[in-house]
Amino acid sequence: MQPFFAQRFAKVEPSFIREILKVAVNPEVISFAGGLPNPEFFPSEALEVATAKVLQNKGNGALQYAATEGFGPLREYIAERYRSQHGMVVNPDNILITNGSQQALDLIGKVLVDEGSRLIIEEPGYLGAIQALSVYQPAFQGVSLNDDGPDLNELDALLAEPGHARLMYGVTNFQNPSGLSYSLEKRQAVAERLVRHNVLMVEDNPYGELRFEGEHLPPIAKLAPENVVLLGSFSKVVVPSFRLGWMLVPDWLRQKLTIAKQASDLHTNGFVQQVLYSYLQDNSLDAHIDRIRTVYGEQKKAMEQALLRHCPGLDFTRPEGGMFLWLRLPEHISAMELFNLSIKENVAFVPGRPFYVRPDILNTARFSYSGSDAATIEEGIGRFGRVIRQIL
Amino acid sequence: MQPFFAQRFAKVEPSFIREILKVAVNPEVISFAGGLPNPEFFPSEALEVATAKVLQNKGNGALQYAATEGFGPLREYIAERYRSQHGMVVNPDNILITNGSQQALDLIGKVLVDEGSRLIIEEPGYLGAIQALSVYQPAFQGVSLNDDGPDLNELDALLAEPGHARLMYGVTNFQNPSGLSYSLEKRQAVAERLVRHNVLMVEDNPYGELRFEGEHLPPIAKLAPENVVLLGSFSKVVVPSFRLGWMLVPDWLRQKLTIAKQASDLHTNGFVQQVLYSYLQDNSLDAHIDRIRTVYGEQKKAMEQALLRHCPGLDFTRPEGGMFLWLRLPEHISAMELFNLSIKENVAFVPGRPFYVRPDILNTARFSYSGSDAATIEEGIGRFGRVIRQIL
Repeated sequence: MQPFFAQRFAKVEPSFIREILKVAVNPEVISFAGGLPNPEFFPSEALEVATAKVLQNKGNGALQYAATEGFGPLREYIAERYRSQHGMVVNPDNILITNGSQQALDLIGKVLVDEGSRLIIEEPGYLGAIQALSVYQPAFQGVSLNDDGPDLNELDALLAEPGHARLMYGVTNFQNPSGLSYSLEKRQAVAERLVRHNVLMVEDNPYGELRFEGEHLPPIAKLAPENVVLLGSFSKVVVPSFRLGWMLVPDWLRQKLTIAKQASDLHTNGFVQQVLYSYLQDNSLDAHIDRIRTVYGEQKKAMEQALLRHCPGLDFTRPEGGMFLWLRLPEHISAMELFNLSIKENVAFVPGRPFYVRPDILNTARFSYSGSDAATIEEGIGRFGRVIRQIL
Repeated sequence: MQPFFAQRFAKVEPSFIREILKVAVNPEVISFAGGLPNPEFFPSEALEVATAKVLQNKGNGALQYAATEGFGPLREYIAERYRSQHGMVVNPDNILITNGSQQALDLIGKVLVDEGSRLIIEEPGYLGAIQALSVYQPAFQGVSLNDDGPDLNELDALLAEPGHARLMYGVTNFQNPSGLSYSLEKRQAVAERLVRHNVLMVEDNPYGELRFEGEHLPPIAKLAPENVVLLGSFSKVVVPSFRLGWMLVPDWLRQKLTIAKQASDLHTNGFVQQVLYSYLQDNSLDAHIDRIRTVYGEQKKAMEQALLRHCPGLDFTRPEGGMFLWLRLPEHISAMELFNLSIKENVAFVPGRPFYVRPDILNTARFSYSGSDAATIEEGIGRFGRVIRQIL
């Protein structure tokens, strides 16, 4: 058989992060490369209770084909949480359940992205979004991410282009990879531009609940609801294996996204939607999240202090939540070379290059603190410090 | 906000089957319209045991992010089943787990279908495949489905075209919608053409295990393994809500399909993969399937006899397995009109038109017998017979 591929897949190769993660599974390696939540906090006992309850109360009825849009009571729960946390008025009909928020990106690509469509994205930007949206072959336009959100001069320049982008993607809280968040002022400024220029923003928010410092800020979706698809996920706050995420969508997009979901896989696993809903009825999500963010906050502090001690003078971000921080190395240092040296010392991280759509920035790196305790962080950053001192 | 859509979605409208199914939920309606497995056979008690076992034995480890390709032991189980049932030598690495076989169709579209690519499909053909693949805008080419499989003269004519189709889609056992199967001779003839003309067939087989008459036939994937992606699903033999299907793929396609899966939703729910595997370890799938196919066989016989009694002279298919049979009405009768009259008599089915890519065939209809017992079938076909007699 002579192989053939669609043009959109002809040149696609596996991501090099997958290769890095393979190296990092060696038990002697201290890995800050992964982006995994700490499994210690997965509520397996409470979920066992919830699964038994669903199967005993609903029996076989819990196991049939289900609605494409998702399980009604779970959609109501999510809508109500937006109300109680942010004072947003959300119709549960506008919540669509997806297989993690990754699938929401695929559905958005299907419904909104033509080959060559301009698409604005932060730099650095979330790699999973670049991968999902690349399938639909947009022309990515990078906007530098400053410490308080996207650079407005660069954004305005892109929006002044004739036939400017109609779609923009960003992670507003504790971004993967940088750990950075949009300030309130930046949120307002972006919302104003979305409305003025008729742009739809995909506001991705998997980490927003994991704030360990500062105050919760409103989603841009609250400020410009017709111009935002807001993504959320239970992967980082309950469990990832259930693959349960959602999108809050404006009315004008709801039907086409539902059709795209139906074409893609009919509907998301209805059984685990009911199990998760039962868990949320019997347990306090807020209390659960409090435990997670307290520990992540301590781990972040441990990494910050270890970096200050072992790598004095190094520039890195100071996230107020989430799972990642971001190193900005001196310009002459290649993070890829640094990775190759570090792995010999049995410490791993992710070089920053794949997070850029303009791949000429080589001196950045992502470190995750969510999966390691303070002692491991101290040891791992100590090893990294020795490598850095060699290279400088 | 001024709406905008990608060109591929600009004209997409919800399927009219969704509208029909909405009408059919009225409890006074006897519905042969759905394509749902009978929930009586969902093993909810055994699955409750399996979920508890997975959570107790593996704890939080069962709930983390997991491999894109799927849960290893489940992939090995599927490979071993191909060996024991069909004598096929299958490497578990070539089994990729998907969200039902519907998602496999989306991934195949992503990796293999360019806008305007010719794609051969049976007529009538499976509507879910038409919907999933339409997203990638192929030029569908219909081949009439005869009682023993696709019409070879039509197939040969399409394969004689310069720049002929490289992709073909078909359901080889108890097709949805027609209930028809490929004979052994047709399987061999199709396999020979795939190899000779360098064509990849997507062989969809969700119903193959539900044979209640005759003998199991080899998949075309056994006859031409490099030229076939074989799809399978647990939806019809265990439970649909878990959304667990798979593809058996040739080596040359494996990596690109894995990348497409990762871009689409990272991986399929790892928890239910482990639960299903645990269920399959502790229970005989064969014994379970025996119960299902015995009942479906009885229900099919009840529908056959009711049709012969209440609608004498009507032409319909005689499936040897699966969930559907197919009416071929006199040419002057529109199944859509018949549907409108039938719904007034509180009986529903699916008019055949959406199953054609050349939508000029109006006189066919799909009836499902999987969800109704013999008495309900007798009553429902009795009502339908009164409508038919009115119209003839």
